[in-house]
Amino acid sequence: MKFKAFVYVTLKSGYSDPEGDTTADALKGLGYSVNKVRASKAYEVYFEGKDKEQAKALIEEMCRRLLTNPTKDDYRFELSEQ
Amino acid sequence: MKFKAFVYVTLKSGYSDPEGDTTADALKGLGYSVNKVRASKAYEVYFEGKDKEQAKALIEEMCRRLLTNPTKDDYRFELSEQ
Repeated sequence: MKFKAFVYVTLKSGYSDPEGDTTADALKGLGYSVNKVRASKAYEVYFEGKDKEQAKALIEEMCRRLLTNPTKDDYRFELSEQ
Repeated sequence: MKFKAFVYVTLKSGYSDPEGDTTADALKGLGYSVNKVRASKAYEVYFEGKDKEQAKALIEEMCRRLLTNPTKDDYRFELSEQ
C-alpha cells in the first residue's frame, strides 16, 4: 500500500529562530503588524507500507532517525493513504 | 484581533527539488521503501488584523510580497483566531 505523510518540523519553543526573526522584521518593514514568525520545515514523504499501523510506525522512525533532530526539534505528521 | 496563520510553501510541480531528492536517497539508504520526498518550508505568522476577512487579505499579500516566489512556489495557509 502507498502512503503519503506530511511532516512538519519546528524548533522546540525556547530555541532562537533567526530565520523567523528576520522574516518578522522584514514583514514589519513592509508595514504589517506582525508579532512573531516561526520558520519551520515540511516534508511530503511518499512511501510503501503494509497497513496504516505499520506506516505510522515507519514514518515515526524516519522522523526520529533522519528528518528531525529530537534534541531541538518538535515534529508532527499527517498520514494519508494514496 | 490577533491571528495566527500557518503558511506552507512548496515548489510548483515540475521544479526539481534537490533537497527532497537527497532526503529520499538517504531514507532509501536506511532501508525504507520511499518513492519520493518533496521538501518545503512552513511559517507560523502571528499578526494583527481587524477581522477574519482582512486578516485573510493581509496574509495573502504577505505570501505574495515576501514569503513566496510566485514564479516557482505554490502556497496554502490555514488561518485561525488567537
